[in-house]
Amino acid sequence: MKLASLKSKNSLDGELVVVSHDAKCFVRAHSVAPSLRQALENWSKNEPSLQKIYSDLNENKIQSEPITGEEIFHSALPRTWLFADGSAFIHHIRLVRKARKAAVPETLLTVPLMYQAESGRFLAPTEDIPQRDFAQGTDFEAEVGVIVDHVPAGVSAEQALQHIKLLVLINDITLRGLIPDELAQGFGFFQSKPNKTLSPLALTPNELGKAWAHGRLHLPLNVKYNGQFFGKANAGEMHFHFGELIAYAAKTRDLAAGTLIGSGTVSNEDASVGSSCLVEKRTLEQIETGAPITSYMKVGDTVEISMCSEKGEDLFGRIHQKVTPVS
Amino acid sequence: MKLASLKSKNSLDGELVVVSHDAKCFVRAHSVAPSLRQALENWSKNEPSLQKIYSDLNENKIQSEPITGEEIFHSALPRTWLFADGSAFIHHIRLVRKARKAAVPETLLTVPLMYQAESGRFLAPTEDIPQRDFAQGTDFEAEVGVIVDHVPAGVSAEQALQHIKLLVLINDITLRGLIPDELAQGFGFFQSKPNKTLSPLALTPNELGKAWAHGRLHLPLNVKYNGQFFGKANAGEMHFHFGELIAYAAKTRDLAAGTLIGSGTVSNEDASVGSSCLVEKRTLEQIETGAPITSYMKVGDTVEISMCSEKGEDLFGRIHQKVTPVS
Repeated sequence: MKLASLKSKNSLDGELVVVSHDAKCFVRAHSVAPSLRQALENWSKNEPSLQKIYSDLNENKIQSEPITGEEIFHSALPRTWLFADGSAFIHHIRLVRKARKAAVPETLLTVPLMYQAESGRFLAPTEDIPQRDFAQGTDFEAEVGVIVDHVPAGVSAEQALQHIKLLVLINDITLRGLIPDELAQGFGFFQSKPNKTLSPLALTPNELGKAWAHGRLHLPLNVKYNGQFFGKANAGEMHFHFGELIAYAAKTRDLAAGTLIGSGTVSNEDASVGSSCLVEKRTLEQIETGAPITSYMKVGDTVEISMCSEKGEDLFGRIHQKVTPVS
Repeated sequence: MKLASLKSKNSLDGELVVVSHDAKCFVRAHSVAPSLRQALENWSKNEPSLQKIYSDLNENKIQSEPITGEEIFHSALPRTWLFADGSAFIHHIRLVRKARKAAVPETLLTVPLMYQAESGRFLAPTEDIPQRDFAQGTDFEAEVGVIVDHVPAGVSAEQALQHIKLLVLINDITLRGLIPDELAQGFGFFQSKPNKTLSPLALTPNELGKAWAHGRLHLPLNVKYNGQFFGKANAGEMHFHFGELIAYAAKTRDLAAGTLIGSGTVSNEDASVGSSCLVEKRTLEQIETGAPITSYMKVGDTVEISMCSEKGEDLFGRIHQKVTPVS
């Protein structure tokens, strides 16, 4: 099933819609719940009703509206209670720490890295990325995320997998220039991690077929920068699977229904697949040539994030954002 | 004006009520908004309607319901989009860092410390504090917090003061035993900062009279531990005022209406006023005697947090929590 949220003048949660498999049309789902956030609070009751709409929509048994343009969609879940962002691609951690001359944690392979990210307002998938100061070092980070129903504290990694209800793509926008001073204070990221962006479509795991296996999504994540190929790293190379990330997040707290868990920047050992963020490319340039060549995002630069099935069908719609100045 | 949220079977946001000045009775405010969270999204429209109910209630012009017990109340704001918790009492930072043999940041006096805390479900003011493992080192941290309406990114500290709509007390429950390993990873707090608790009542700044001045609340915060005096540190001794904390939080992002900004543990240089968390007391014991004497919270231990006006009137109701075991 494919779900989305229309932008709405009446609600910061957007309006829940069911999108057809071919992403050509949609049906408003207010008979089930006004918003996806609210639908997730009673998912076991609402999910069958939404699946029924999805079946009827795909079989042309129900009146639908055409998708006239990608700008009608907000992020699939426009806001939520918790975005716990992991960093499950070890290759990314090694490169980023090398870039800022920081040691990797001793527990790199045994304990996930995780921080709590902004989730009170996601940017829309085609909304501009505001740039206040070029020196802040605007970067994108292309990730995969899962959305869970209510998760009790102390859940095991295996049990946690049952709580995964939806998958999305994420642009974890990052201000690299603010990170060194912020981390030196010892309290983790805050100003360096502004509003993020989700894909327009959220998919149930069954929509992904065999690509969703063992808590990992085994497909390349396509990243274009200024319209050119930038990366196609496979998201299946996660060191910790999503069940492990959820269990880590829920060790001392329940997770509210609608909690988003991020994979961290998708990154592969194989350099030929490219990167999912600028800082990795800059670090590789530094290693090869002694200095980074690619700059951070400037006004006008664009990033596009999407994923296709093995058959080449677009799955989540695209995140496509341009940097614009803010005075 | 005093506002609160009744516990509700129908909504995780609770039910918005206006509480009389003497905190003896309340009026349900669903004619204005179903919940405080929703009321805050259109505060300029809703605040006058709520103030009218408050006036009528205090003048006995409107039918009210008696407050039959403190267990009817949830945290004043049962959940919200962002809890940005500062650490604005320098004395606390110095003591805590000494306790864990960590250096204070070089920017201690010029840049606030802030982390993003759990806000998807606050505990009710008299809800038990779950203890999964005594070795996790359960501690309380008594704080003051402000709740804002929508704050645009880049706001100045002076402008930020205008966005403060309500004040609350906070128990920032902390698992000390998890902090060293967590901070060693470099991503800040996560598991060490589980669900927090707010006071039952949220007050508008005007309700606090002259005690609210220059972005600080100049009153002692009363803390009792197992029924005995533990602290009465004055919350007015904040190094950074709330406008500065809000401006810090909003440097690179808008703050959603309903965002909670915490002061950090209230702490004074004058040792005779006691402490607002166990780790400070333990550190002072370590300095005096070579080893901490007071243990972290054990099953059955209770903490009580409240604040009185200069006239001795209770302001926010009380947070009163007991540690209970979780299997």
